[in-house]
Formats: sequence, C-alpha cells, structure tokens
Amino acid sequence: MKRLILTALALTLAAPAHADTLVDNVNGITLDRDGKLVRFTGLVIDGEGKVKQLLDRKDKRPERPDFKEDGKGRTLIPGLIDAHGHVMGLGFQLMLLDLSDTNSLAEAQAAIRRYAAENPEMPWIIGRGWNQEKWGLGRFPTAADLDAAVSNRPVWLERVDGHAGWANSAAMAAAKVTAASKSPEGGRIEMADGKPSGVFVDAAMSLIDVAKPRPLARDLDRALYLAQQKLLEQGITAIADMGTTIAEWQAYRRAGDKKQLAVRILSYGGDIDNMAIIAGSEPTPWLYDDRLRMVGVKLYLDGALGSRGAWLKAPYTDAPGQKGLPLLTPAQLRNKMVRASMDRFQVAIHAIGDAANAEALAAIADLDADLPGERRWRIEHAQVIDPADMARFASLKVVASMQPVHQTSDRLMAEARLGPDRLAGAYAWRSLETAGVRLAFGSDVPVESANPFAGLAAAISRTDAAGQPFGGWHPEEAVSRETALDGFTRTAAYAGFAEDRIGTLMPGMRADFLIVDTDPMMASPDEIRRMTPLETWIGGYRYYKKKEGATIGR
Amino acid sequence: MKRLILTALALTLAAPAHADTLVDNVNGITLDRDGKLVRFTGLVIDGEGKVKQLLDRKDKRPERPDFKEDGKGRTLIPGLIDAHGHVMGLGFQLMLLDLSDTNSLAEAQAAIRRYAAENPEMPWIIGRGWNQEKWGLGRFPTAADLDAAVSNRPVWLERVDGHAGWANSAAMAAAKVTAASKSPEGGRIEMADGKPSGVFVDAAMSLIDVAKPRPLARDLDRALYLAQQKLLEQGITAIADMGTTIAEWQAYRRAGDKKQLAVRILSYGGDIDNMAIIAGSEPTPWLYDDRLRMVGVKLYLDGALGSRGAWLKAPYTDAPGQKGLPLLTPAQLRNKMVRASMDRFQVAIHAIGDAANAEALAAIADLDADLPGERRWRIEHAQVIDPADMARFASLKVVASMQPVHQTSDRLMAEARLGPDRLAGAYAWRSLETAGVRLAFGSDVPVESANPFAGLAAAISRTDAAGQPFGGWHPEEAVSRETALDGFTRTAAYAGFAEDRIGTLMPGMRADFLIVDTDPMMASPDEIRRMTPLETWIGGYRYYKKKEGATIGR
Repeated sequence: MKRLILTALALTLAAPAHADTLVDNVNGITLDRDGKLVRFTGLVIDGEGKVKQLLDRKDKRPERPDFKEDGKGRTLIPGLIDAHGHVMGLGFQLMLLDLSDTNSLAEAQAAIRRYAAENPEMPWIIGRGWNQEKWGLGRFPTAADLDAAVSNRPVWLERVDGHAGWANSAAMAAAKVTAASKSPEGGRIEMADGKPSGVFVDAAMSLIDVAKPRPLARDLDRALYLAQQKLLEQGITAIADMGTTIAEWQAYRRAGDKKQLAVRILSYGGDIDNMAIIAGSEPTPWLYDDRLRMVGVKLYLDGALGSRGAWLKAPYTDAPGQKGLPLLTPAQLRNKMVRASMDRFQVAIHAIGDAANAEALAAIADLDADLPGERRWRIEHAQVIDPADMARFASLKVVASMQPVHQTSDRLMAEARLGPDRLAGAYAWRSLETAGVRLAFGSDVPVESANPFAGLAAAISRTDAAGQPFGGWHPEEAVSRETALDGFTRTAAYAGFAEDRIGTLMPGMRADFLIVDTDPMMASPDEIRRMTPLETWIGGYRYYKKKEGATIGR
Repeated sequence: MKRLILTALALTLAAPAHADTLVDNVNGITLDRDGKLVRFTGLVIDGEGKVKQLLDRKDKRPERPDFKEDGKGRTLIPGLIDAHGHVMGLGFQLMLLDLSDTNSLAEAQAAIRRYAAENPEMPWIIGRGWNQEKWGLGRFPTAADLDAAVSNRPVWLERVDGHAGWANSAAMAAAKVTAASKSPEGGRIEMADGKPSGVFVDAAMSLIDVAKPRPLARDLDRALYLAQQKLLEQGITAIADMGTTIAEWQAYRRAGDKKQLAVRILSYGGDIDNMAIIAGSEPTPWLYDDRLRMVGVKLYLDGALGSRGAWLKAPYTDAPGQKGLPLLTPAQLRNKMVRASMDRFQVAIHAIGDAANAEALAAIADLDADLPGERRWRIEHAQVIDPADMARFASLKVVASMQPVHQTSDRLMAEARLGPDRLAGAYAWRSLETAGVRLAFGSDVPVESANPFAGLAAAISRTDAAGQPFGGWHPEEAVSRETALDGFTRTAAYAGFAEDRIGTLMPGMRADFLIVDTDPMMASPDEIRRMTPLETWIGGYRYYKKKEGATIGR
C-alpha cells in the first residue's frame, strides 16, 4: 500500500503541474513570517504547489478551482520540519530485523528465520532488540541458538541496549573470530568451552562489526524509500540531514532524478570532505522543486553525555576527574569553519557539553566579523550551557538546534552526570529563548523517534511519554505552544536558510501541510503526543493518507 | 568573450523555452536513421530544441517562425560526437602552463612568471612543454633557473615528451626531496654539486608528483568550463566520457544544476566502484535535457602499445619475449562484466593488443546469452585484432570504438612493435566494417586533440596532418566519407544508447549541429582537416560562434 503511494507519485509529478487547488473547511493554523499565530478556514494552492491565498470564513472562495478538497472541519497545520536528523540512519534502522517484541528465544528464532526467508538477497542478517532477561532465558543466548535459526549466512544482532551483540557461527567465521581472539580494551568476548560463545560485549562488538558488508546502492535506495515513508507518516515534510556522506547524497539525487524524492532534505555535509565533494565551492542550488539542497557542513566538537564524551568545564559528577574531550583542536575547528564559510557554506557545530558550547561560541566570536555574507551559525544539541554563555549565544545570533525529546530521555542520566548545580543550563530552552536565542527543534532521528508530536509535547510540558515526571522536569524551561510550533516550523526553516520557501503557510510559500484530528494549540500535552497526521501534503500534493478505519491517536 | 557566451547561456536557458526556429538557406547534410545521406536546405527547430522538419529547396517555409537564421549558403552538418574522450583530462590540460612555444630559457622564465602572477590562488604552478634542445641551452635547466622565475610556490613542469620533470626548490621541499633521496628503479634524479639539480627523469618524476595537491572542486569546475569551450570550438556537441570518477561526476552535476552544461556527456564510470557510487543500481536517467547520463562502466583489460603494456598473442617484435600483460584475470573481468550487466550498465572494455581483444571477445561470448536486456558491448581502441577474431566481433554485435588519429600518430611505433605480419589487423577500420562491425569514432582526448575534423580526414585518408605518408598508411583500411561521418555521429550515438535523441538531424532528434564553411562530403582530406566550426548549436541554441574576421581554415 505504501509502495503504491510513492509509485503513484512518480507518475503524478511526471504529468503537467496541476492548476489551482482549494482546500476548504479546515481549522487552519500557521505562524506568519513574523511568528504571529494566524488562523484560517481555507487554503488556495497555485499550479506550482505554492500557497496562493489563506481564506477566512467570510472570504469569497475561488469560483472554479481545478481541484477541491473538503477538510471536513479538521485541523490543518504547517508541515513539520525536523531541524536535526539522519535520514539514512532512519532508513537503515527500518531495514533492520527488530526483535524488541519477542518474548522468548523460540519467538526470536522464528522471527529471525522468517526475516531471512523474506530477505534472501541480504548477504548478512542484521538486527537489534533482543533481551535475554525479558525472555526469561537465565543466560546469554549462544551462536548455536542462532545457527538453529539461520546458519547459511552471517547473523549479527544488537542487544536492546546496544551494549552487546549476538553472532552466529557464520558471522564469527566471516569476522575471523576464533578461540585465539582477544577481548579488546573496554570489551569482552563471552566464552563457552574455551571458545567464543557468540556474544560480544561493548568494545568487543567491533570484532564482528568490521566484517559487515558495506551497504550497496540499492540498500541506500531502499533505506531512503523507507525513511521517507516513515517521515511522511509522522508528519515531517522537511528535515535537516546532519552529516550527509557522498554515498547518501547520491541516493538523494537518484531519488530526485526519478521524481521519487518527496520529503525536503536540507543537507549538511559530513565534515569538510563530504561537503566539498558533494557541493564543490558553494552551496548547491535548491534542486527538484526545493526538495534537496546542500546548505552547509556538520562538524563534531565533542561526544555525548551518556558515554561521558561531552566536553564539560568541570568534571563529571559521577566520574571525578573526567571532563570529556574536544574532538577538534582550537585551530582545527577554526580552520574548518573558515574553509566552509569562505565558500558560503553554513556551519553547524555539534556541541553538547558546556565547555564545547563555550568553545564553539568563542570560535564564532573570533571569526564572525571577518567572514562574508550571513553566516547564521548553528550549534547542534546545545544541551549543557553555562548560563554565563547564553548572552553571547544571542549576541552572535547563533541558532540553538535542540531536540526536546532528548530532555525526557536523558533526564535521569543528566542528573547523574551533571549533579544538581549544572542543571540550570541543561536543555534550557526557555532560558535561551529569554536571552534572545532562536530555537530550532528536531529529533536526532534515529537516536530518538522522528515523531514531532512527541517533540511538541515535550517542549511544552517537560514530560515523557508516560507523563513523567509529574509537573515536568525543571518545568520553568518549558516553552509556549507558539514557540514549540515555531521551533518545528518557522525557525527550523530559518535555521536552514529556507524561510523564504517553507516553514509557514503564508502566500508564496510551498504548500507543505498536515491534516490532523486535534488542534495542537488547544490540546493537552498528552493529546498532542498521541496526534498523528491523517494526511501529509508537500508542495500541494498529498503524499500520505492514513488508512481509513485505523484508530486515530494511538 | 568566451566566458560571456557561457554566462549568457545560463540566463538564456533560465528563460522559457523558445518557440519555432527556422535555419534556412543552408547546404544541409545528415545521415538518416538507417545511415543514408540526406541533403536539405532548411531546418525547423521546435520549442523543445528538437528538429521538427528538414526542408528541401522546394518545400514551403513556416510562415512566421519565432526566430529565423540565414545560413547564407554555408554547410550545416550534425554536431559531431566523440565516442571516446576524457572531459576533465582535457580541462586540466587546458589549465596547465604551456611552454611548448618558448624558444629560450629566458622566454620560458617570463612565461612562468606571468602565469604565476595571473593565477595567484594556485597552490602549485603545474605545466608542460619545455625543451632545452629547442632553447639551445646545451644542458638541462635547474631548480635555480626556475627559482629565478617563481620561488614562493612549488613549480613543476613536464618536458615536451613527458619523460622528465623540472622542479623548483619549493617543489622539492614540498616533496621532501633532498641530497639523500634515491633514484627509483626506471628513473633518475639529475644531480649537481651532490644535490638534486631540479630535473627528474622518467620514474623519478613520481618523487615530485606525489606531493602535488589534489585538485579542489573549483579546479574541477574551471576545468570543465574550459573543456566545454574547447569542445564547442572544435564542433563536439556530445562526448563519451570514459572512466568518470565520482569527483568528476559531481562537477558535471554542479554545472548541470546551474544550467552551465552545454556539451552532452555520456558517462562511463571508472570501474565498478565509481559506477556504483555515481549511478547506484541502474544507469541514471538522462539529465538536464539529455545533457548528462551515466550509461555504463569502463574497464581496463590491458595497457598501451607505446609502453608495451598492450597484451599481444605473440611477443613484441622489438622486445622479444615480452607480450604485455592482462590487467584483469579472466575471473575478474567476467565478474565485473556480470556485476555491471546485471544492473543493466553497458560495459566498455579497453583492449589494445590482439590478445586483449580476443579475451574481451571470449568473455563476451561466455556471458552474453545469460544477461538481461540489450548489452551493446563496446571494445575501446580495438587497435590490434587478429583477423581471425573479426567475425566474432561482428557476430557478438560488439561496437568497435576507435580513434582514427591514433593510427596516424602511432604508425611508425606500431610498425616497430608489431612487425610487418601483424599490421593487417592494426587500426583495421575497413576490415572490421567489412566483417559487419559498427565503428564509433573518437579522439581519446587529451591523449590526442579532440579535433574531429582531423579524425574525419584520417579516417578517409590514413594520412597525418602533414599528409604523410603519401597515399596513406595501409590505405586499404580507409573508410568512405559516409562511414567516417557515421562514426562521428550516428554510430557514436548508437554506441552510447543515444541514437534515439542525437547523432542525426532527422525529425524528433535534438537539434545539435554545426555551421561550417566546407562541405566535408566534397572536400579533400587536407581541406577537411583544416575545417573548423563557424557556429556550434546544441539543442536548438547557438553556444559558439567563431569571432568575425578570424581567418577560416587555419
């Protein structure tokens, strides 16, 4: 069914552009170009797929629109923009075998066998989600358990927490792992009868990982297809792809060339090398009717909080003496920033710890005045910020590209890592907004689900999917509904130099919108979290329609 | 001036497509779809840049064409297609400093100094063409001679024959060449006062070559711009690019995205890796109004005759015991052919020696029947063929992609390498044609000039630019004017699966044509060799017009 929709698309777009379309009888919501909330009841789309007119209840309708769509009183909101995600990471996640629903080893073995039979062309079976505790197995599974399901190809499955992998005998043979193999530092090969048992913990997982085949172009194409379907289902009409490689870019172009690129991708090259081979000496033009553009480069300045790779000003509370480390020297960071900026590429810097954020701001302050054009610097994640640095964030006009759901997933870990005193600058959306910083919101998919409604709910409530903690975690950092919507629409577009074409539904903008069954400006955080799009439209075309009869809101 | 033309193009094509154009009062020539010569006096081009109608003298002209062009009785021929070239190789050749016109060391120093001043952004000055014999210098030049011209950047200049290089002190320092450096096997570091003098012979050239900076994207863009200008001047409207790398492909796409791709490029990936990362799991669509497509892959089966890398059935006449070597094992060759063909990529195999040609044919015979679709195998160069293999060439429907000018450049060398007995199958155009093989003609630019008129002249006369040897070298292998024109138009298009859109001027085909001042079906080989286009049109647009007042035919 989903495949049909995208195939039909290819045909549709090959036909001449449609003429005027009227979407009428809707509870329409958008921000205007200045961020003010606007309501409307009808939307006229022109032949280029752009918004021609917003109509009030009293406004006269076009007499003879070429197409007319009755919104049946449902709510229409702008297409949501994920300001930070990994399109192909999502696609490959969707291609993996998922064992997280299995309740016994036997169930898992059956699922593995079935997946192998359904995917005869895959050279390796790759998956995730097993949990021997949930299975009540009382031990780790073994290679022999896996061989019993599939023995003629390598199988390699990550545990639910990502901290162990389970290989069959073919995978160990392909990776040349034997009884003589040594556990690397930070890892452990589980042994049985003097031989590797099949389970590899933490750093030892790399012993098998290195032998995995590189994905083929057709795998990339399939992953992109699946990722687009998932994003359309979730109401994402545009996404900033953070760290695009040349192989990924080629998949985007192949899809674009065949008119199979639906979701708009604002691409940031994975470091300078990918940026340069993809785009050359300046950002690319907007391609495929504003479906694809390489606008800038993604740089990594530090790691993540969970693994204590984030670079902090003071030691980790739960690991005295450790502060994390910068991944770039001051000279390296500045050289890369200048290299990109001189060719007018936008720079997006991954900075999680307060030291990393301070260093990113220092580098921006050092360079900003001497560079051409409008830089519109971005700091990605901006998770832990020394409150003393917030004013500088604003004065340098840096966009804070943040992921609301990270706050709900990370809160207990963040408390452990940072202790109580540093939480004032952690996931500090409201403080940044108050300081004058623009907030672009995203998901970091596939690290989190791309579901932007979970993001909207977290942004306004500081609570997780279970509504925890009651009243919200540091609720003073929650933002208004308008700011949350702005972060996933207007400012997400601004953050990618796309505010002249997407992010609002004002006349002249691309007609990217969702039909939903709930008014997010009125609903409770819990209701917002459970919203899903009934329809997803991009450039005036409906790319996704929820199956009729499906239960809404679960 | 040239820059203006291409810049203007970018603007022109951004405007709506033009409507009907009448090019009238011409001595028009084309082959029809079956290869029969057709003459006409007027050409109507439709709004898409395709031929709408060929007009006879007596035919009624359209009453009100939107544009009308008076051919003034000059000759109009189809745009010429180079079936085997290297677009970026040509571009980089054009970017180099060319010293071949200098008559003294002082003149060379002045040229080097001037070039360095004109190209302040180049990290290295790279060039070629010096000849100390011509300068009457009586010795090799030295690093100090070069330092006197440019000392603040590396300078590295190849001798006219490509067998020596001349470095300045900065280049030797960048390459870490010192008095302690050793000459590699097959090479010699010239020494003076116990130090490298600055000249590096044969294999020793690599000591400096490895330190040369990789070209930047902007260098690639500039090279493509220069290559297109040169091809337009020479009357090439389409070219098969043999061995495209991902970096080169990205430059083609950048140009296409900006509407700055004028010449049509039929791209063959440089081996499987480039093919796969560029095009994925099938040939790309035609992009940019049929300006660019990756259609297949280029594989190397052997080397060249000059360096005795071509793989022969019997030893080289001038190197007893040596037969050259295949660059791929039988299994490797077949694996690559299957890998490409299964994804419907066309396979073009470089084969120069008779053993290489026989092995390419054997591999094709092994695989052909079991592969999907129409393979249309190509053998590139096909320079030395055992006459016993020619029937198989025809029965397998392999296209012979040959370069007429190679015959004129190679003849003395080929006589030495092959001896008299093997010349019957060398550059054997007519024999292949008689056997039923289709001939696609090209230049192998930049190994030879891209000038297709030199190719046409060589094809019909077997003589070089000086008219040597008198009466032609093995003149029985010359082809008719019709076959020569076919090789550079209709069959060159067929060889790249493009015969449905280019190669002839029959209605429905792209309006790619040249205005020339000589009728090539009437002129002498010498006159043909001196022809140059007065105008070059692609897709109904004039991209090149020879400057007025310029002398024609020199």
